[in-house]
Amino acid sequence: MIRVYGMSGSGNCHKVRMVLEALRQPYEWNEINPKKGETKTASFLAMNPNGQVPAVLLDDGDALVESNAIMFYFAEGTTLIPSDRLARARMLQWLFFEQYSHEPYIAVARALRKFHPDPASQQAVIESKMAGGYRALEIMEGRLAESPFFAGERFSIADMGLYAYTHVAEEGGFDLERFPAIEAWLARVEAQPGCTRMT
Amino acid sequence: MIRVYGMSGSGNCHKVRMVLEALRQPYEWNEINPKKGETKTASFLAMNPNGQVPAVLLDDGDALVESNAIMFYFAEGTTLIPSDRLARARMLQWLFFEQYSHEPYIAVARALRKFHPDPASQQAVIESKMAGGYRALEIMEGRLAESPFFAGERFSIADMGLYAYTHVAEEGGFDLERFPAIEAWLARVEAQPGCTRMT
Repeated sequence: MIRVYGMSGSGNCHKVRMVLEALRQPYEWNEINPKKGETKTASFLAMNPNGQVPAVLLDDGDALVESNAIMFYFAEGTTLIPSDRLARARMLQWLFFEQYSHEPYIAVARALRKFHPDPASQQAVIESKMAGGYRALEIMEGRLAESPFFAGERFSIADMGLYAYTHVAEEGGFDLERFPAIEAWLARVEAQPGCTRMT
Repeated sequence: MIRVYGMSGSGNCHKVRMVLEALRQPYEWNEINPKKGETKTASFLAMNPNGQVPAVLLDDGDALVESNAIMFYFAEGTTLIPSDRLARARMLQWLFFEQYSHEPYIAVARALRKFHPDPASQQAVIESKMAGGYRALEIMEGRLAESPFFAGERFSIADMGLYAYTHVAEEGGFDLERFPAIEAWLARVEAQPGCTRMT
């Protein structure tokens, strides 16, 4: 049985849940609370020396980390990864965009507003994330004005990856109503198997 | 002919050069200077709305961006990508680690020290990058103490990706002598085709 170690409020962890649900792959979810130090225990650090969720233990005991690499592992050989070489690279391009130009702004602003014990004390940091977050949303809007999904005509794990924090971007203070192509795409993603909102 | 748009002092751009050299793939290098606004022109933004180097124009005119996705595209079907499914996901795991937990610290500290017109004015930002950079190096040291290359027994584009900014980490103020496994790995990487130091 695949064991997932994740935090339910984390978009990065939600990606793992979505891909496993989409593929109807049985798994055991182990809820991890980083605030209680549960990502810094010796057993957790043995899975991920970087001390971050999600981490996955495969059947033979191998650990795999980094949400987008985990999605890739499970999705290989399925329609969630394009069979065309350029579309496959395009999918990875958007997954790297997600980790470098989207998550550090939108996910961080959301985490501080939603989970910090005193969000008001974090106002300056939150404000510093808004321009970068809107920039990422503008770039997504441009792509979605020309293509139904990020890798091209078909849904892929690039869409799952970008959905994870975009569908809760308003919790980070971002106004999605400015982005009609993103809003239409969110609805298309939610029509795919396994693609549920975070609870 | 493949056209690469890059800046020679950038590790992200150097990755593209390394993979093309390793594969003996002919290409045309177009030097781009972001400080002269060359990543914000209409023609550059048509290739990459994110306004970042590197960007690649393929033979049929398709643009591809994000250094690690570009490496993946060219390396597919070669020994630079492991044929084993878990090793392939492991390779991607380390490439996502590179973009999220390594580049934002080590590359940024280096860029400010090496390329900023007044590095002394950036001392506080540089200092704020040191702990994260050393943390990334410690995690790499741990992996390399157990495995010759990041994906496993064989050299892959994960090594190229991490080599790009690690071999110049001292320009960012990081002391690599603390990391003997990294130093031995740098030499192993430099013994691979195409893997030259940045000039």
